[in-house]
Amino acid sequence: MRPPVIAFLTDFGDEDWFVASLKAVILSLNPRATVVDISHRIPSFDIDAAAFVLFAASTYFPKGTIFLAVVDPGVGSGRKIILAETTRYFFIAPDNGVLSLALAREKVKEVREVTNSRFFLRQPSRTFEARDKMAPVAAWLSRGQKPESFGPKIGRYVKRNLPEPEFIGHEIRGRILYADKFGNLITNIPGSAVTALRGCGSAKKLSLFINSTRIGGLKESYASARKGELFFLIGSLGLIEIAARESSAFDRIKPGRGAAVRIFRVGPKD
Amino acid sequence: MRPPVIAFLTDFGDEDWFVASLKAVILSLNPRATVVDISHRIPSFDIDAAAFVLFAASTYFPKGTIFLAVVDPGVGSGRKIILAETTRYFFIAPDNGVLSLALAREKVKEVREVTNSRFFLRQPSRTFEARDKMAPVAAWLSRGQKPESFGPKIGRYVKRNLPEPEFIGHEIRGRILYADKFGNLITNIPGSAVTALRGCGSAKKLSLFINSTRIGGLKESYASARKGELFFLIGSLGLIEIAARESSAFDRIKPGRGAAVRIFRVGPKD
Amino acid sequence: MRPPVIAFLTDFGDEDWFVASLKAVILSLNPRATVVDISHRIPSFDIDAAAFVLFAASTYFPKGTIFLAVVDPGVGSGRKIILAETTRYFFIAPDNGVLSLALAREKVKEVREVTNSRFFLRQPSRTFEARDKMAPVAAWLSRGQKPESFGPKIGRYVKRNLPEPEFIGHEIRGRILYADKFGNLITNIPGSAVTALRGCGSAKKLSLFINSTRIGGLKESYASARKGELFFLIGSLGLIEIAARESSAFDRIKPGRGAAVRIFRVGPKD
Repeated sequence: MRPPVIAFLTDFGDEDWFVASLKAVILSLNPRATVVDISHRIPSFDIDAAAFVLFAASTYFPKGTIFLAVVDPGVGSGRKIILAETTRYFFIAPDNGVLSLALAREKVKEVREVTNSRFFLRQPSRTFEARDKMAPVAAWLSRGQKPESFGPKIGRYVKRNLPEPEFIGHEIRGRILYADKFGNLITNIPGSAVTALRGCGSAKKLSLFINSTRIGGLKESYASARKGELFFLIGSLGLIEIAARESSAFDRIKPGRGAAVRIFRVGPKD
Repeated sequence: MRPPVIAFLTDFGDEDWFVASLKAVILSLNPRATVVDISHRIPSFDIDAAAFVLFAASTYFPKGTIFLAVVDPGVGSGRKIILAETTRYFFIAPDNGVLSLALAREKVKEVREVTNSRFFLRQPSRTFEARDKMAPVAAWLSRGQKPESFGPKIGRYVKRNLPEPEFIGHEIRGRILYADKFGNLITNIPGSAVTALRGCGSAKKLSLFINSTRIGGLKESYASARKGELFFLIGSLGLIEIAARESSAFDRIKPGRGAAVRIFRVGPKD
Repeated sequence: MRPPVIAFLTDFGDEDWFVASLKAVILSLNPRATVVDISHRIPSFDIDAAAFVLFAASTYFPKGTIFLAVVDPGVGSGRKIILAETTRYFFIAPDNGVLSLALAREKVKEVREVTNSRFFLRQPSRTFEARDKMAPVAAWLSRGQKPESFGPKIGRYVKRNLPEPEFIGHEIRGRILYADKFGNLITNIPGSAVTALRGCGSAKKLSLFINSTRIGGLKESYASARKGELFFLIGSLGLIEIAARESSAFDRIKPGRGAAVRIFRVGPKD
């Protein structure tokens, strides 16, 4: 039998004991669980960054994976803990929107509020519910406990929506969603939309504007650019990314999150 | 059968190969061991920080866990390597006090000096005994080797003591032990002492002084404060913490380690 | 049966989802694989640093370990993906020299170009071949798939050579290869050469020059030096390291990578 996978995303950092405390709780309840760290270096309290990273990471995990996503500025308040079951996965998180992007891609079967204290550690603290409530629920779920054991179905939960790209004539308007470790700037613009904009067989070229910088040229890969050259490409998430070969586009452009991006077709007369 | 857990705390960092070398040694000797990283980002040579993180992390691990705690400025000197067995756990570390706080909470059965070179790598180096001596001992222990195999019992080992909080009339005096990733400042003052100080059913309020900053108000959770507000609460270790909601108390107060903290009752006349 | 070990070294960082994507792919194909992180904090695109860390880490892993080493500025270009089989290990990497130092120590049986798309994810991207090609190949290999399944043998692959130390009379000239987390400066000079230079039973002392700093004294261990003292010793890789006790030699000397180092014998008349 396949050992169950628990994939784990937080803003806890990796210098203290927080991550290990959750793993300790999980291994105490289910020694066979395989815990995979997605990242624990989400900036403190940054729900949007966590939602994006969970979206980016989750699709390659095996069927049945239990995602535990904890960026939880509301811990100890009345915010719910939720358990979402999709056709492929389970997700456990505070009800603050951190699951929004990942759930938008999955087929959601049901969402429950986690309320059954039978599965919590005794005397759960009001400041570390990830350790005292969410981790044990993940561990029990990985042991085969049914979702209905943990609490009642709910119809509504918090959603944060990605800004949608807009298509206006020969122009696509989008936004920067994330800057990765290499300084690549990932937008909300699907690569397919840009391929369509360019058209087939035509000699049309594309340009991209961000802040007041104009970037010419959709490349096929990082290696197609010259060292240091700014360009854009369809990245490994299927979204348009702005990159600089063997260099950081982020350091060159320094956009804020949500910075506006425009891509348009440049004709022969341009 | 439960796979044995080896929990691993060091100041080795996570950029080089040091941590992987120990895992390689462990997996070579016991492929069934589950190695859990507590943290490898203890500041270089900081035995006090490691002692605190080990104390904070260790209590949730399953019975039988083997803790390997290596902050070892004295490597290559005459300092001993010790193996402590408690009613729940095993601990392997250089004899420099890094186990002090964790052992103070456990019931210690015996402490041994690790001397039996039969369990070391051949030709152990004088600069990386964690890889050449401690990791293989942890692996052999996880395979069921008895503690008495590794060396003789010893009666004394190095202890570092936490400063104890003092109770003077309606005042508690303590110290900052640790600043975590979120900038929460963890003191040595037990939450229960503060609850007792406040008294039951009374309208008395509490104030906290650190450096020249006065912080008013014991909160139940982070979410009870306003954004950015400085406050104090009973943290998830049961100790008083100074926090700032969705912000860093450390950055606001910048206390040195060991900074003095006073908590006292503020009456209606105050 | 021993669960197969996949040891994993990249410049992907640990803040994003890149590492987790590869682990997800591997666990989907082989849930029994044990993935060990060597480091993901190699500086972006720094093939030399990765080659050194792989060299330093690889020798302690169990027989049969599959190393996946990805620092890949040429992703999407014509650069090959290679699979090297040695008498002890397997190595999968882009063909850019990242394996050079590790392979120079092993006995290489054969090197293949990985070309068989049957083992790749469907529609592999041109920007993340580690996820779409290398990780699945590692997973299939860990399931027992034979190396010849993945592609044809090749006779040549990219090698990066370490600068070799030079021996000139009573002097050894070498270079700094790596600065580790503690600020220790690791040279390419084998400890055995320095022991030979000093000679047996003689009263000769050794000095080391780096930049314009003269460092006197080969020590046996870090603990033999005074706090803060600069010295050199034979480190845990068997190479000469420059260190400062409980302090950072790097911060004191700030050498560039490749900085020249000279060690020579100081006679009584010196």
